[in-house]
Amino acid sequence: MTNTDDLTAQLAFVLEADKLKSVERQTTIADGSRRENSAEHSWSLALMAIVLADCAPPDVDIGRVIQMVLLHDVVEVDAGDAFVYDVAAREGQAEREALAADRLYGILPEDQGARLRALWDEFEARATPDAKFAAALDRLSPLMLNRASGGLAWTRHGIVASQVRERNAHIAEGSPALWEAANAIIDCAIDEGLLPDR
Amino acid sequence: MTNTDDLTAQLAFVLEADKLKSVERQTTIADGSRRENSAEHSWSLALMAIVLADCAPPDVDIGRVIQMVLLHDVVEVDAGDAFVYDVAAREGQAEREALAADRLYGILPEDQGARLRALWDEFEARATPDAKFAAALDRLSPLMLNRASGGLAWTRHGIVASQVRERNAHIAEGSPALWEAANAIIDCAIDEGLLPDR
Repeated sequence: MTNTDDLTAQLAFVLEADKLKSVERQTTIADGSRRENSAEHSWSLALMAIVLADCAPPDVDIGRVIQMVLLHDVVEVDAGDAFVYDVAAREGQAEREALAADRLYGILPEDQGARLRALWDEFEARATPDAKFAAALDRLSPLMLNRASGGLAWTRHGIVASQVRERNAHIAEGSPALWEAANAIIDCAIDEGLLPDR
Repeated sequence: MTNTDDLTAQLAFVLEADKLKSVERQTTIADGSRRENSAEHSWSLALMAIVLADCAPPDVDIGRVIQMVLLHDVVEVDAGDAFVYDVAAREGQAEREALAADRLYGILPEDQGARLRALWDEFEARATPDAKFAAALDRLSPLMLNRASGGLAWTRHGIVASQVRERNAHIAEGSPALWEAANAIIDCAIDEGLLPDR
């Protein structure tokens, strides 16, 4: 059972995290009608973790992966989203996100804040099987949405197939089966004229 | 490891579920700038399940609660959202949602679809400790957002304090601590002039 001060802090964190619903990503939702926000993106990844659990290597703890993807973008409340193909925007992003993590997880009761911050640090370091599978989902989702929307975000930014394969190659470290699925999506997108084949 | 047909079905389910990002709720996001959609709402509940886990009775399995809230609104892809205070809109909603569950969980491989459908049925029946805690989060979140936004959804629909207490009373079954927090929020909303005290 939590005490009143802890509960007040926890509810304050939940309201602060609500701002993630206003952080826009470059990717659109599947029907292409608008850009996706980081809160609903996080929901998609958690749903994928449930549904695609069979694609995870046997040493992956899906419960931890789900918590990881639910939390993975909370730092964007302060740091914003940096498009994965935008090298300039990504400069300094790690430092901005670390400061954001200090402030945001600092709202929580100390033990809990440290525990959830450690889960985010693990996601960022992408060194454990859980973090690698979480990262694979985080890359597969925009691939699926970009193809479903007719390649809107790719076209807007002039992205070509080789960039997509290079930026998403680490899906293979998290799940060979999902990397195969990702390549099939890229091949279809090329055939459909959504991605220049170079 | 999943087979190719299963994976194709699972990815199709993920894209179909993406439509939840276009299902609007009556509640606004915390800053009041726009209405919340059911996908980002589901993310909020899952985040709350992580952060407020200490408020759950000891027999609650938080991992199951997280999966339950991530899935709880997927049926709205077909059935839409029915405002909790709108008695007319809620008529026939259970039947519409059951048909939607047949179709949507039917996209998945049979075993998996049956397992996830059972989790949704459990949520709807609100008879187990896990489902009661999930339902408590599902009621607490809009309370928090309505107060944070200055009572926008309450004012638009002419909702008064006694309706809010009655409709949310089942929070107590899921978590006495969260029911106490909910009452504190309602009291504050009355003091702030956001909810008529009758």
